[in-house]
Amino acid sequence: MSDETAALDELARRRGFYFQANSAYGGVAGFYVYGPQGATLKANLEEAWRDRFVRREGHQEIESPDIMPEVVFEASGHLAGFDDMILECPECGASHRADHLVEDGTGIEEAESIPPEEVQEIVADRGLTCPSCGAPLSGQPVEEFNLMFGTNIGPGSSSPGYLRPETAQGMFVEFPRLKEYARGQLPFGVAQIGKAYRNEISPRRSLVRVREFTQAELEHFVDPERDEPPIERVADVELPLYPADEQQAEDGGQVTMTVREAVDRGVIGLPWIAYYLGVAKGWYERIGVDMDRFRYRQHLAGERAHYAADCWDAETEVGGNWIEVTGFATRADYDLRKHAEHSGEEFTVFRPYDEPITVERPTVDPDMSYLGPEFGGAAGDVADALERLAETDPDAFEGETVTVEADGESDVVPVEVTGFAVEEVTENGEHVRPHVIEPSFGVGRIVYTVLAHACREDTVDGETRTYLALPPELAPTTVGVFPLMDKDGLGERAREIAADLRRAGLSVAHDESGAIGRRYRRQDEIGTPFCVTVDYDTLDDDTVTVRERDTTAQVRVAADDLAATLASLRAGDLAVDDL
Amino acid sequence: MSDETAALDELARRRGFYFQANSAYGGVAGFYVYGPQGATLKANLEEAWRDRFVRREGHQEIESPDIMPEVVFEASGHLAGFDDMILECPECGASHRADHLVEDGTGIEEAESIPPEEVQEIVADRGLTCPSCGAPLSGQPVEEFNLMFGTNIGPGSSSPGYLRPETAQGMFVEFPRLKEYARGQLPFGVAQIGKAYRNEISPRRSLVRVREFTQAELEHFVDPERDEPPIERVADVELPLYPADEQQAEDGGQVTMTVREAVDRGVIGLPWIAYYLGVAKGWYERIGVDMDRFRYRQHLAGERAHYAADCWDAETEVGGNWIEVTGFATRADYDLRKHAEHSGEEFTVFRPYDEPITVERPTVDPDMSYLGPEFGGAAGDVADALERLAETDPDAFEGETVTVEADGESDVVPVEVTGFAVEEVTENGEHVRPHVIEPSFGVGRIVYTVLAHACREDTVDGETRTYLALPPELAPTTVGVFPLMDKDGLGERAREIAADLRRAGLSVAHDESGAIGRRYRRQDEIGTPFCVTVDYDTLDDDTVTVRERDTTAQVRVAADDLAATLASLRAGDLAVDDL
Repeated sequence: MSDETAALDELARRRGFYFQANSAYGGVAGFYVYGPQGATLKANLEEAWRDRFVRREGHQEIESPDIMPEVVFEASGHLAGFDDMILECPECGASHRADHLVEDGTGIEEAESIPPEEVQEIVADRGLTCPSCGAPLSGQPVEEFNLMFGTNIGPGSSSPGYLRPETAQGMFVEFPRLKEYARGQLPFGVAQIGKAYRNEISPRRSLVRVREFTQAELEHFVDPERDEPPIERVADVELPLYPADEQQAEDGGQVTMTVREAVDRGVIGLPWIAYYLGVAKGWYERIGVDMDRFRYRQHLAGERAHYAADCWDAETEVGGNWIEVTGFATRADYDLRKHAEHSGEEFTVFRPYDEPITVERPTVDPDMSYLGPEFGGAAGDVADALERLAETDPDAFEGETVTVEADGESDVVPVEVTGFAVEEVTENGEHVRPHVIEPSFGVGRIVYTVLAHACREDTVDGETRTYLALPPELAPTTVGVFPLMDKDGLGERAREIAADLRRAGLSVAHDESGAIGRRYRRQDEIGTPFCVTVDYDTLDDDTVTVRERDTTAQVRVAADDLAATLASLRAGDLAVDDL
Repeated sequence: MSDETAALDELARRRGFYFQANSAYGGVAGFYVYGPQGATLKANLEEAWRDRFVRREGHQEIESPDIMPEVVFEASGHLAGFDDMILECPECGASHRADHLVEDGTGIEEAESIPPEEVQEIVADRGLTCPSCGAPLSGQPVEEFNLMFGTNIGPGSSSPGYLRPETAQGMFVEFPRLKEYARGQLPFGVAQIGKAYRNEISPRRSLVRVREFTQAELEHFVDPERDEPPIERVADVELPLYPADEQQAEDGGQVTMTVREAVDRGVIGLPWIAYYLGVAKGWYERIGVDMDRFRYRQHLAGERAHYAADCWDAETEVGGNWIEVTGFATRADYDLRKHAEHSGEEFTVFRPYDEPITVERPTVDPDMSYLGPEFGGAAGDVADALERLAETDPDAFEGETVTVEADGESDVVPVEVTGFAVEEVTENGEHVRPHVIEPSFGVGRIVYTVLAHACREDTVDGETRTYLALPPELAPTTVGVFPLMDKDGLGERAREIAADLRRAGLSVAHDESGAIGRRYRRQDEIGTPFCVTVDYDTLDDDTVTVRERDTTAQVRVAADDLAATLASLRAGDLAVDDL
């Protein structure tokens, strides 16, 4: 663990941002609690996401269950293929992720994409040993382990269910109803912020690889032939890109270009993805991600999920490691098609033509009183074969006889008994299966990044000060309220002011213990952007001191205006310098 | 199902409030999706809860994992005792809740509190039959079924885990750390809004009895001897009470009295519970619960959970049934004590004395060179017994010998070899195990109530209109924006205005299809409190029409002021009449 991440975890635990769950019982790997500061920071972050990716884009948010029936994951492919490679130590019995053993022990990258048999060979060839007990692992089998948490719905085991490994499936499965709420019109977007669960073999790196986490996912359903993103809204946004070819070039590196350039030059293949990279860039800046420690990295061909035609990750750097915080993928029509196949329901929208069109449709109406005696039990199959042939090759019916394959035999049928005809049909439109553009955000990893990138040190009054430079919108506490001391009515006035600010909907910390400097430091460490001090002048003229976190600048504000002033400061409509 | 609940479910499905999940696959009982309207309504409701019960009370919110290890539920008692009675039909194999069969088939109330053997007898005596296939159920065993969803953490089955059946355990288990964030001072409150899971045998009544649901729970940790609630803040709030003795009296009924009266007359035994009943009453009114269909019902002695000294439910009436929407209980020190016993950790806070006190503490220091030869293998047990005796009955050491029980035998020991002495010790305080006051809200049931109580019909322009009179704070959409028609630039101006309002953080529906009256109705049905129409006057003087939902009153507002005006209307700082 790097110094930065160790210091972050320590601050997070001490100040109540996050800590490992169940520590009274020794802890359980991969489960974290967001403490009082962290839960509020996370809720504020989710609200900022909702504001940008749901409300401002005009999309809609739903909340679907965490537990889903097995059939959903049969269709989605998770039941068969959502596996990691597991290797068990023959000595101590510890389970390890085989690809991580290889990466850590050999320097090979992206070992996840190597087949299990080869991973097993590498473990043997390189003489890798168990990280827990040191025993040699050569010869141990590398097996597939499904990452879904299973359970049973209702009594008995006849209805297996799983905790969803992504919130997305809840939106795909409900597509037939969700499209009604969009009045059957593409494009439309459906979002969800919720829990997802992956039974990781080796959870690690604090909030980065956990077993229960929060996703904020947007599924934008678009007509693949007609819909284009409003790229002009973000055309001039500069993107820090790390494309696949740069990753594979010997002297490759990051390149910066605008959204428009990236699309025009084909660096980003799909304009929809370019659009969301542009939108998201502004959002990451808004929530305080350090743009010098941020990039968009394109997936290499071997890395992409089975359904993804192109995929870019937003990555942030913390403690020397790059962390994937968001994936931007097209899932094409993969999921909707699979659910249509497995459920028999329609997962399409009807797209009307501008004008109804007339099409010629070849049909057959075979004379079964001929086919029956002639082909016996195969007569039905012959009739089906005639129907298929009429659709695929109507010209075959131009002669006296047609030949079809049925039950492995070639059968010759006189055209006159096939009832072949070409009808004229009026069609008003067609059924279109939407493609899905998916920006998928890992909320916990973004919380982690925002905290890491907000950590600052400076010197105030000759002493080193640690503070979190969180954007006021995200800070768990907006204002700390302190009486200079708890006597002569100062304490009482401070409590009144704190209550007023709470009634105005602000998040307030009231603190009357210890030296005033120590109280400032305590709020600095949790990123509280403003502190209000009630002193003897307050009793005279009803003004208070407002102190800004990053600059430590102080101004006097009338207590009457305080709630409105702080709300404007928090919203960014006002700066402390303006006061 | 009553007409009211059937109509509600139909509206909810059609307009996107809630609907059964996985319907493409035939649905799974007990799992619901909140659609676009419902998810936003629910999020707004949660925010209103957070505002009132967390921020304004000065409590803190956390987020703990849904999956918890088995040991937590061994300690809490859920593993052994969180059961419902199940009865399986011998013919069709359907599983039923035995107590519900009895209630539905005999009119007996609260059958949940009848022991399983008696329930089995009642089923036989009354000749109850299977609701699914009609087969007789006499003689079928009634068994206990644990309602927790089980799973496995990590590979294999060596680490069983469960989906939490209440969010509360996450706050109890983490108490040792949470108290640090409260700087070890009682009282303090910790809240959590999150999912809970109960594998109900027979989910029913729409959102009322589901398998996955959201709780908003507050655990207020108080010093049972010293802390008193600030009852004066709610002393005059009138409470509609249905006390236990009124429920048991032949002509008993609801009584109304203030919080102060209820405490003074002992109707509510615990002032802390009275305090929260008072706070919550105002909150239910704020979110639109009809106070004519609301009551606080006291639990009967047999109904209370094992840990609850007194318990009141908030109940709402929907479709002729009373629904428990919130429980107000004291859990005393039950959970903290159990987790202390099972984990060996401290679940107490240190309460300093005003002045250090000096106490006499009897101690022993047995001479093992005497006990060893005298008692052999039992010598250690004899020494322990002497230590316990010194604590509990120091007077026993006043004679020449003492008698202790060890290993089932009475042993006589000369006092001179016990090393008995009385030391003077200075103590600065004592360790106190807090009591827990718990208001526990069922968010889904409150959403359901709020929707049911908001449904209204009136006549507008000679036609029947259905609308949802939701408080603006809760309404999923704050404003509908309509161009009178999409030509002459009206459509474009309406889109600009919608975008401006979204940028200002408002929830906006933009609708340009159909007659204007129909667009109003659509918003009325989802409870949108305000609609804005862009017409030809807008192009002249840049004003728009704002129409209020309940009164259908219309006023003209300058487009420039629109965002601020709507925000004030939503916050209740302004009424349409004031414009």
